[in-house]
Amino acid sequence: MKIARFAHQNAIAYGIIDDEDLVVLKGDPLFAGFEPTGDRVPLHGVTLLAPVIPRSKVVAVGKNYHDHAAEMGGEAPAAPLLFLKPNTAVVGPGDAIVLPPQSSQIEHEGELAIVIGRIAKNVSAENAERYIFGYTVANDVTARDLQHADGQWARAKGFDTFCPLGPVIETELDVDEQTIQTRVNGEVRQSGVLADMVHKVGAIVEYASSVWTLLPGDVILTGTPAGVGPIENGDTVEVEISGIGVLRNPVVRA
Amino acid sequence: MKIARFAHQNAIAYGIIDDEDLVVLKGDPLFAGFEPTGDRVPLHGVTLLAPVIPRSKVVAVGKNYHDHAAEMGGEAPAAPLLFLKPNTAVVGPGDAIVLPPQSSQIEHEGELAIVIGRIAKNVSAENAERYIFGYTVANDVTARDLQHADGQWARAKGFDTFCPLGPVIETELDVDEQTIQTRVNGEVRQSGVLADMVHKVGAIVEYASSVWTLLPGDVILTGTPAGVGPIENGDTVEVEISGIGVLRNPVVRA
Repeated sequence: MKIARFAHQNAIAYGIIDDEDLVVLKGDPLFAGFEPTGDRVPLHGVTLLAPVIPRSKVVAVGKNYHDHAAEMGGEAPAAPLLFLKPNTAVVGPGDAIVLPPQSSQIEHEGELAIVIGRIAKNVSAENAERYIFGYTVANDVTARDLQHADGQWARAKGFDTFCPLGPVIETELDVDEQTIQTRVNGEVRQSGVLADMVHKVGAIVEYASSVWTLLPGDVILTGTPAGVGPIENGDTVEVEISGIGVLRNPVVRA
Repeated sequence: MKIARFAHQNAIAYGIIDDEDLVVLKGDPLFAGFEPTGDRVPLHGVTLLAPVIPRSKVVAVGKNYHDHAAEMGGEAPAAPLLFLKPNTAVVGPGDAIVLPPQSSQIEHEGELAIVIGRIAKNVSAENAERYIFGYTVANDVTARDLQHADGQWARAKGFDTFCPLGPVIETELDVDEQTIQTRVNGEVRQSGVLADMVHKVGAIVEYASSVWTLLPGDVILTGTPAGVGPIENGDTVEVEISGIGVLRNPVVRA
């Protein structure tokens, strides 16, 4: 089931994608379930928004594909390397990634994002699925020069617009069967399979929930495969995960 | 003016401290102003809570006192070194700091916390005061062993209960005139003056708001002076800032 958050006729609503339509829901399905209003709207007539705005955390996992760890000059860590992005970085499909003046090297990182559905603390990998609402596509936009300069990644990965999410949340995804691809102006830059994650979804949820309480709507970015590279003013960057869709964002200079 | 958030007769409310009483307010003064309900309750009859729960970010500044940077084996950075703590780490006065099993070296870091009052992006140091709602006391609790092991500080400083805030928000504080002291079981461990901050409040707000949009209720921890050290099961840790009050928390092993 694909869930969208969308703007239509000056209101924001949630819906389930049904062929070319959206079945409009009464509330945010994370909190209010899947009760339909009875209305249907054509998909082509709405503006899709970020499918979730975390009330608390965007957690991210660094160096979670061997080939990306290698291109960064290291190895994938034995345990998930966690960092945080602020919810003020979240934008939706079609929204601009705004390049801040502080950086001259801003890069794309296409990633699978886990959307947490229930309060989770000390959840085992085996039970993780019960706490997951679904999956969406993320771009963990990174000011590579500032990442190296600061040491801490909060600034380099935390600028406003540096966490595009969307286009929809897929509630039933066979993660290990999916491909991920990042394209800039149509040219393939990153191409991988989610099965190559070093730390798998269940292990990540187990590890993250052993540190902090995960809340409904918290998002966990699961790392990027090899091929990260620059985005420039005027580019269009697309991250596609099979089974979910294409997250497309224009890039503009502030 | 000192603002408290408190529990009384199974309800949560905000109030202004007036001698031994609280003047109860109609709503959260961050969003609803300072309109009193007409009720007064005695301070000794309420439970004080964290005076703010950030909807978005707890930003923190690393190594912002020369003497602490030196004890950590380095120098204070030329620009504020920013990192993030999740809002799930926030607890209030009197709440337990829970020592997680993953760490065997958990330390106190007493700090001044800025509470943001208005949406702030690209604010100058000169105008920063207009965006500040007030100040409270924070303990930037840190699993020192995990901080060194991970490199990224999100986990080591992000565990549940690792961000005590309180006891109140002081809306009018002459920051440069105040002292800060951290005590463990009554023994003084950290003692300094806020005037020794390397990057001052205005400069921190300017820098942080050049990176991300600060929202009302976002909190910025401004760094800790020298003397950080271990807290153990059964300890009581107090952080006191003159002009605000004492933030006191028991320490328990999970």
